[in-house]
Amino acid sequence: MTENKQPASALSSPRFCNMGTFMRMQKVDSAEGLDFVIAGAPFDTASSFRSGSRFGPNAIRNISAMMKPNNVIMQVNIMDSLKGGDMGDFNVTPGYIHPTYAAIEAGVAEILKADACPIILGGDHSITLAELRAVAKKHGPVALLHFDSHSDLCDEVFGEKYNHGTPFRRALEEGLIDPAHSVQIGMRGSLYDPNEHKMAAELGMKLIPAHKVREMGMPALIQTALERIGDTPCFLTFDIDFVDPAYAPGTGTPEVGGFTSLEALELVRSMKDLNFVGFDLVEVLPAYDHGEITSYLAANIVFEYLSILALKKKE
Amino acid sequence: MTENKQPASALSSPRFCNMGTFMRMQKVDSAEGLDFVIAGAPFDTASSFRSGSRFGPNAIRNISAMMKPNNVIMQVNIMDSLKGGDMGDFNVTPGYIHPTYAAIEAGVAEILKADACPIILGGDHSITLAELRAVAKKHGPVALLHFDSHSDLCDEVFGEKYNHGTPFRRALEEGLIDPAHSVQIGMRGSLYDPNEHKMAAELGMKLIPAHKVREMGMPALIQTALERIGDTPCFLTFDIDFVDPAYAPGTGTPEVGGFTSLEALELVRSMKDLNFVGFDLVEVLPAYDHGEITSYLAANIVFEYLSILALKKKE
Amino acid sequence: MTENKQPASALSSPRFCNMGTFMRMQKVDSAEGLDFVIAGAPFDTASSFRSGSRFGPNAIRNISAMMKPNNVIMQVNIMDSLKGGDMGDFNVTPGYIHPTYAAIEAGVAEILKADACPIILGGDHSITLAELRAVAKKHGPVALLHFDSHSDLCDEVFGEKYNHGTPFRRALEEGLIDPAHSVQIGMRGSLYDPNEHKMAAELGMKLIPAHKVREMGMPALIQTALERIGDTPCFLTFDIDFVDPAYAPGTGTPEVGGFTSLEALELVRSMKDLNFVGFDLVEVLPAYDHGEITSYLAANIVFEYLSILALKKKE
Amino acid sequence: MTENKQPASALSSPRFCNMGTFMRMQKVDSAEGLDFVIAGAPFDTASSFRSGSRFGPNAIRNISAMMKPNNVIMQVNIMDSLKGGDMGDFNVTPGYIHPTYAAIEAGVAEILKADACPIILGGDHSITLAELRAVAKKHGPVALLHFDSHSDLCDEVFGEKYNHGTPFRRALEEGLIDPAHSVQIGMRGSLYDPNEHKMAAELGMKLIPAHKVREMGMPALIQTALERIGDTPCFLTFDIDFVDPAYAPGTGTPEVGGFTSLEALELVRSMKDLNFVGFDLVEVLPAYDHGEITSYLAANIVFEYLSILALKKKE
Amino acid sequence: MTENKQPASALSSPRFCNMGTFMRMQKVDSAEGLDFVIAGAPFDTASSFRSGSRFGPNAIRNISAMMKPNNVIMQVNIMDSLKGGDMGDFNVTPGYIHPTYAAIEAGVAEILKADACPIILGGDHSITLAELRAVAKKHGPVALLHFDSHSDLCDEVFGEKYNHGTPFRRALEEGLIDPAHSVQIGMRGSLYDPNEHKMAAELGMKLIPAHKVREMGMPALIQTALERIGDTPCFLTFDIDFVDPAYAPGTGTPEVGGFTSLEALELVRSMKDLNFVGFDLVEVLPAYDHGEITSYLAANIVFEYLSILALKKKE
Amino acid sequence: MTENKQPASALSSPRFCNMGTFMRMQKVDSAEGLDFVIAGAPFDTASSFRSGSRFGPNAIRNISAMMKPNNVIMQVNIMDSLKGGDMGDFNVTPGYIHPTYAAIEAGVAEILKADACPIILGGDHSITLAELRAVAKKHGPVALLHFDSHSDLCDEVFGEKYNHGTPFRRALEEGLIDPAHSVQIGMRGSLYDPNEHKMAAELGMKLIPAHKVREMGMPALIQTALERIGDTPCFLTFDIDFVDPAYAPGTGTPEVGGFTSLEALELVRSMKDLNFVGFDLVEVLPAYDHGEITSYLAANIVFEYLSILALKKKE
Repeated sequence: MTENKQPASALSSPRFCNMGTFMRMQKVDSAEGLDFVIAGAPFDTASSFRSGSRFGPNAIRNISAMMKPNNVIMQVNIMDSLKGGDMGDFNVTPGYIHPTYAAIEAGVAEILKADACPIILGGDHSITLAELRAVAKKHGPVALLHFDSHSDLCDEVFGEKYNHGTPFRRALEEGLIDPAHSVQIGMRGSLYDPNEHKMAAELGMKLIPAHKVREMGMPALIQTALERIGDTPCFLTFDIDFVDPAYAPGTGTPEVGGFTSLEALELVRSMKDLNFVGFDLVEVLPAYDHGEITSYLAANIVFEYLSILALKKKE
Repeated sequence: MTENKQPASALSSPRFCNMGTFMRMQKVDSAEGLDFVIAGAPFDTASSFRSGSRFGPNAIRNISAMMKPNNVIMQVNIMDSLKGGDMGDFNVTPGYIHPTYAAIEAGVAEILKADACPIILGGDHSITLAELRAVAKKHGPVALLHFDSHSDLCDEVFGEKYNHGTPFRRALEEGLIDPAHSVQIGMRGSLYDPNEHKMAAELGMKLIPAHKVREMGMPALIQTALERIGDTPCFLTFDIDFVDPAYAPGTGTPEVGGFTSLEALELVRSMKDLNFVGFDLVEVLPAYDHGEITSYLAANIVFEYLSILALKKKE
Repeated sequence: MTENKQPASALSSPRFCNMGTFMRMQKVDSAEGLDFVIAGAPFDTASSFRSGSRFGPNAIRNISAMMKPNNVIMQVNIMDSLKGGDMGDFNVTPGYIHPTYAAIEAGVAEILKADACPIILGGDHSITLAELRAVAKKHGPVALLHFDSHSDLCDEVFGEKYNHGTPFRRALEEGLIDPAHSVQIGMRGSLYDPNEHKMAAELGMKLIPAHKVREMGMPALIQTALERIGDTPCFLTFDIDFVDPAYAPGTGTPEVGGFTSLEALELVRSMKDLNFVGFDLVEVLPAYDHGEITSYLAANIVFEYLSILALKKKE
Repeated sequence: MTENKQPASALSSPRFCNMGTFMRMQKVDSAEGLDFVIAGAPFDTASSFRSGSRFGPNAIRNISAMMKPNNVIMQVNIMDSLKGGDMGDFNVTPGYIHPTYAAIEAGVAEILKADACPIILGGDHSITLAELRAVAKKHGPVALLHFDSHSDLCDEVFGEKYNHGTPFRRALEEGLIDPAHSVQIGMRGSLYDPNEHKMAAELGMKLIPAHKVREMGMPALIQTALERIGDTPCFLTFDIDFVDPAYAPGTGTPEVGGFTSLEALELVRSMKDLNFVGFDLVEVLPAYDHGEITSYLAANIVFEYLSILALKKKE
Repeated sequence: MTENKQPASALSSPRFCNMGTFMRMQKVDSAEGLDFVIAGAPFDTASSFRSGSRFGPNAIRNISAMMKPNNVIMQVNIMDSLKGGDMGDFNVTPGYIHPTYAAIEAGVAEILKADACPIILGGDHSITLAELRAVAKKHGPVALLHFDSHSDLCDEVFGEKYNHGTPFRRALEEGLIDPAHSVQIGMRGSLYDPNEHKMAAELGMKLIPAHKVREMGMPALIQTALERIGDTPCFLTFDIDFVDPAYAPGTGTPEVGGFTSLEALELVRSMKDLNFVGFDLVEVLPAYDHGEITSYLAANIVFEYLSILALKKKE
Repeated sequence: MTENKQPASALSSPRFCNMGTFMRMQKVDSAEGLDFVIAGAPFDTASSFRSGSRFGPNAIRNISAMMKPNNVIMQVNIMDSLKGGDMGDFNVTPGYIHPTYAAIEAGVAEILKADACPIILGGDHSITLAELRAVAKKHGPVALLHFDSHSDLCDEVFGEKYNHGTPFRRALEEGLIDPAHSVQIGMRGSLYDPNEHKMAAELGMKLIPAHKVREMGMPALIQTALERIGDTPCFLTFDIDFVDPAYAPGTGTPEVGGFTSLEALELVRSMKDLNFVGFDLVEVLPAYDHGEITSYLAANIVFEYLSILALKKKE
């Protein structure tokens, strides 16, 4: 069983030393005995506009050295409460989505087999399909909690079925998602399909575009999501372009008129009572970031995931 | 008559292919038979602080490849409803404002002659004077709807009458604007003239500085603007520095404490029932942008203009 | 006595000419006869994560050339009301905190001796301890009004007592601060000490973390701060990381989920009736800035300080 | 037949106006009657390290607006001597190499069918295989003149046969290249295979690594290349990473210790008497460029290609 | 008479303190009693491609803080040998070339009147015409020693006579330059006029393009220049784009295939025995620079000017 | 004994996966049984101009993922020949040089005790003093082979004895260096002390400034260095600013007129027969780098060190 080596405290070891794992956690080779495992899926082959999110996991890890273990708002110390580590990156195949999917699915399955919770760092949003394959194998169709500016429900993009615009259409077809308990939040921007909202509904999903979020307000949004998801095993997928480009410029298909970093953090936190079986954070593209503000926001969102897990463990 | 060639759909042609016109629209040589024409006025000679907005039109066009034709909130497909195209750039003369003004005025006049609506991409704010000359020749003095952090009502800057700080003073003197139906919104930042507000009033204009906008709230602001403008033919000029530098760093004279991208988009959208006869979007300066967030916001604001036109056409 | 040479007006002298002092004010060698003196403390040796804020004062000065003398909201012209200038930088010793502290303390003491108000540009937050030593020698323990995302109340960092994480612990120990009249506002982010709030309270301080600010709202926050500080001589220290990284990417230890530039400016302005005896603005790190948006926000905050002083002088 | 519209002269139309085609040439839909056609192949799916060269063609086109028609050293005006244009981008399929290959091959074939010379802008180096397929169909196996820091002769990368590390191995297998008349120049950097040189020889190729170039000197290198290629129809492929990263930072797999921009230009120029049947320029990656220096060097290399064609036409 | 205050030694005052004048020299208001005066001409209105060199003088001054007084190769201490200072910037009028020319000419004339040597920091190359007007008034037509990648001998650009492409044509027409003793070195890149070399000869100038420099070698070049100029009073104008963009990316119209920083420094140094009556350094454009490498090279070239003056003074 | 785990081959594991150690080598906790150990000394407190080299080791490690094991020129595979690993970073104390020195000295001593060769990544040049203390304890005074644009022989900077300008003066005083067998190569730029060359000679050192290198030529330089050092145990310290800023912009005190990357690599390689007992590579400052060109050059220089060690091992 993997021991739970605490990361160095930045009060004694400077935070710019020994970067390389998320929050400078232990590097693990196995998920055995762990509560969670962080892994990277540095794959950007499925990107439709800007590529480069293959460097996302490394960027998030580097800047996550700034994070510390206590979540003051959630009142929990993630390191005291949880055993976990960073497993490094899945062995993706740049340029080839199907062998990459196999590698990611196998990797996530291994984590799940050990009853650890997978937390995957993207990479473009196509990776979530592979994760859901592994998750659904264990838990059956899951509730999808999806923060994004795009619904990623296209049937085809450029005449191809597998792409970062199609993962949730495929997941529905493959029965990986339980649409009746799923919610997609934050969609906005110009569209090809004027009836995307309706199309999602026809697929059984609930899509709440950004302008509806503004109309209904955050409390109603949160209640709607919590009620719909209920206690179905839930997978949270967060595309960093949910947030406005002012807060997250480093991404492949940004959309203006988005949410603030504060709103993003509060929304994730508000979901803390759901029955989470997996998480990912996708579409961080360092070459378009500056001052590492996108990577650092991503690291903080992952920290909220960990805090939710820690709270659950404490219960 | 120019045919209405639809731009390639990004679902079949990747959006990074064949950039070069706004939203990869057809390039047009004439405005005949079109509802709108987009043209660039890449002139930055009149800038008082940072220069470089001559590269604004090209940057906006490049990133506008990410845009798609449906405006979900306005419920309109701009390509289905409208015939239009991108005419390229007016033949400005760098370093010389008067021949540049002549070129812009002639270009806008040609568009107006064909009863197409001009949508001009700047360049610095001095260009609006030339546009207004053409517009007023056709429509008489117009209502100015002006979003900006500066009023651009100076009489002289550096002892010169023509500059990006003076266009609306000149426009008033030349009788191009009907001040009684004009509104200037969003002015803020430190000033030379402590009584700018009053000075605008003395010129017959209504200037609503940013802090007044916060006091009165958006609904009251919108009502005030709509009532004042009424059905007077209206020219909308949007200086990207209306938006806070967090959202629009790529500009020549940014002002902190500004508006969000969401507020900007909603404000433009709220004006949809006005009687617009022309639009511009100015002061995008790519060399100070990063991640193209400023250019992309600008492209989205232009998309709202097009959506307003499309709604009108559908009526 | 130093004469009060007005800076060149940007209406006659372009703002990109003759940069080098704050707002292109006169360079002064002495504080005699002045109302305020601006000085730089370009020291970053005490930074725990990113270094480079030694270039902060220069960056703030360069971009401050965009500022003009009238504060429209505060209704005051700082140049008409006040006599002051820019003294350049204190002679810090890179790599060595104690000789640097001596240089800063001596420099601030000289300004105070002339009854001018010191406005210091950092530099990392360690510099404030030296400033407080000088200020407390004249005024006794002062009320600290502290805007920051970190409380900087650590006892030791890396086993050392003097660091940008410890200045206010040291200041309390040295009796430079009157904790009963002090307020720390805006703390957020993950922490080592889960009870930082309580720890501050045990030291007699009032720490209002960011999430409490959101709960209580700005008016209640302002009232709380004003009441607690009362008319105790007050030192305002503003760490630019109080603001969200979207608005202030150029800093050493950013924290997401922060405040907007508008909120920052309004908060400073709301404190205008306090009895200020000194100010600083710290942690601007130009190498991580872009479009100079962080430096320009910093310059505007300093402009609010000057406006407060100007209002007081007019009374 | 396509007419030969000259691009606007920058002496009358500023060079930052109407960017969008190479050197602001006419946009063409057909190669009929033209001497050359420029087209983009914005594909980066096959990149093994950094992705993003999909934006290469657009970046090269934008900055190529700075180019003018006369090559003083070659004593030729490319616009007077040649008829040609920019066909825009081939309709690549991001994420999928085989449909992309089909699109590129078809596009190049169409250009060749009209007896125009194809000049292709990449994209990553995988695209050259598709170009060679079209070229060899017309001309039989061609001499490859290959400037690069890598030989791109791998058999497999990541277990896959098609990748930017394998195109010339595939081309040899497919009989597209005549190895006995081919030369690869400039290889350097650390390697997996210590016997790459020998391996190339075993494939019948001649590989001249950078350190051998330094040993033999430029004149001997040029002579060797010219003699080996002789009058075999020749395809010139130039990977921008042939040049040192100081001169070409914007690329995916840079190698230090490389050539200068002057050496690159002189080498291309020295090949002017070869019997060229096609050209490409690959691996420009704008997100890692700065000041557009890589794109501009690429544009200049393409200008040398055009000058060679123009010289031939004049003969 | 202005005293000769030595700049602070970086051994005692850190070089990032008190930036703002060239090499942190004294700021001077008058040239009286000085050997040299440095002044900025932050004007970029006449730029034909990228604008923004108005920020050049400030950038050069900031980074020049890294310079120290001894030139080891020239064996001279510029501060010990010379009296001089930095006069700040001439009061240019952005957007208007003629009032700007008047301001620059007056400023240079004032320096010359005091028998100080003017060293002007640009700004685009148009400024040199104004400088030459002042210089020729004192010294008669001067020998021009011109390092540049462009000859700037156009008659008109965009139909205008005054531009950064025309200054030396105008200077010849105005009789400010003695062409028989002038040399232009380093011209390269594509051209509009295929006979530029000849055209220069027809104007009586000697233009040595970059490829001729490579042919003849540096020693022959130096001898040619020295012989042609002889002891005619000489004005040295250095456009930073003489240097390759790898060494000087921050400029408006870069040309690849250029010279190294070492070659540039050695060339300037080799001219040390000429009879210099003035210098300028133009076309530094900070927004396209990175790591300040262009500004720092510019500062070093100015340092060589000062060393030449210092050597002369010692004789 | 530490086993020798080979890094993943980039032919099967993409090079952007699992970054975090140099060349993705194994992470080691002990030097036992190893031929070499790489460690970081991320300390920049002693920097006199720009700070930020604390992020140097991480940047070099990240980009070193591009390196492969075979050195073709040296004809050696470093991974086959050598056993080694990356020990991570020494536990430096930001802001405090003496505890940092203790940590570095102890770390290097531990490596040396195991008879492994230390290869240290800086950090600023002050760290070399601590390394030399450990090295000299084992080997006695060593020959210093020093590539740099500065001699770092100052007695005091800012009145302090320990700084990145003073390490070799201190090392001489402490008897760590044998000056009679030491060489300093590449010094250039303006200086405070006009007699630095002579001063070095008085200390018994041999300093060969850059202009002397150009005069004598590389072969003579190499011979001079090899003869002087002979078979004395030798420590090679390479300051990245030896290279011209075009090739290495990311550093704290760049000097123009420097060496190319090719020259740097060839020089290191030419020293392969010396009796090396340790190496470092210092002054990489990522915040001023672009396209990672500086970090990648640094990684390649370290690769040459490893190749030299591998050659020796094979003998």
